[in-house]
Amino acid sequence: MNASQLETLHAGRYLSLVRRGHWEFATRHGATGVVGLIAVTNEAKMLLVEQLRPPLGKRVLELPAGLSGDIPGEEAESLVRAARRELLEETGYEAQEVRLLTEGPSSAGLTDEMISFFLMTGLTKTGAGGGDASENIIVHEVPLTAMPRWLEEHRHAGWAIDPKIYVGLFWIEHNSRSMGDNDRT
Amino acid sequence: MNASQLETLHAGRYLSLVRRGHWEFATRHGATGVVGLIAVTNEAKMLLVEQLRPPLGKRVLELPAGLSGDIPGEEAESLVRAARRELLEETGYEAQEVRLLTEGPSSAGLTDEMISFFLMTGLTKTGAGGGDASENIIVHEVPLTAMPRWLEEHRHAGWAIDPKIYVGLFWIEHNSRSMGDNDRT
Repeated sequence: MNASQLETLHAGRYLSLVRRGHWEFATRHGATGVVGLIAVTNEAKMLLVEQLRPPLGKRVLELPAGLSGDIPGEEAESLVRAARRELLEETGYEAQEVRLLTEGPSSAGLTDEMISFFLMTGLTKTGAGGGDASENIIVHEVPLTAMPRWLEEHRHAGWAIDPKIYVGLFWIEHNSRSMGDNDRT
Repeated sequence: MNASQLETLHAGRYLSLVRRGHWEFATRHGATGVVGLIAVTNEAKMLLVEQLRPPLGKRVLELPAGLSGDIPGEEAESLVRAARRELLEETGYEAQEVRLLTEGPSSAGLTDEMISFFLMTGLTKTGAGGGDASENIIVHEVPLTAMPRWLEEHRHAGWAIDPKIYVGLFWIEHNSRSMGDNDRT
């Protein structure tokens, strides 16, 4: 395998199918990163979003999330700014503290997509939420103590549960200044 | 969006790029599922695998994982059987107890891939591990109590850390019979 040999099998509008050696994978266009938002209110509730996801054809419960640098003219948008914008768009909340916790691959065999997880606290509701014009998002505010059971109940009732919610729950429980990088910009 | 209209933009050997309405996503061929293995030894160590991932061009620390039904003649392989096979192939361990914890989408905007998480305990080392002929896998056995710091140290040293490891840590801490489905087959 030569890391420099990247062959485009098909360039779509948002995604390309590419090949490196014998390995095929998907890569995004027109975005610089993906942010996943671990947002906790002052009442110890976690914010989740529910939306219909075309690839799965069903409603999915997820962390608020989105792309950075995907708006024309805003290609240099930082991850932190994208995190703030997406939280407001999707949930209607603004965060006083935004902190990068960790980052890693979505599905290392299938895509080069990396997701950056931000802890967002000091929340104030200033907007309606619900996503942009192309989205139809329902916001859930779930007490942290009720989360594991709430997720199981929804999974058994037919919702898809994004495993990244459990990443969020782990980091909330293990949150300390020694883990992760601080950022209040 | 009509859920029945699925257009293939390009069919690769392992992946296709497809479109439903305006939404492009990647879908796998020749497999019936993906298993992620949360494997804990009797000494309270978690098994992780390290391998070079062509999409990322770097070494990734991950849960042991793999596809079900991807071997010719074994298309009907169950998820539980795939979980046992992959654990043995990648780590050299056999598990007495195999239990489905949860399942969910890898990246709900980008692919229809779903991953099923299994807790594997009662482990006995019976093989060499290291993966099949096409893989070059290093196995790590990390004490659970050391995991968060160990992962942070490796991330800062340049490894990619699959966030699904944190899914595993959450479920290990919250493991109870009331959450998830039991399976000893």
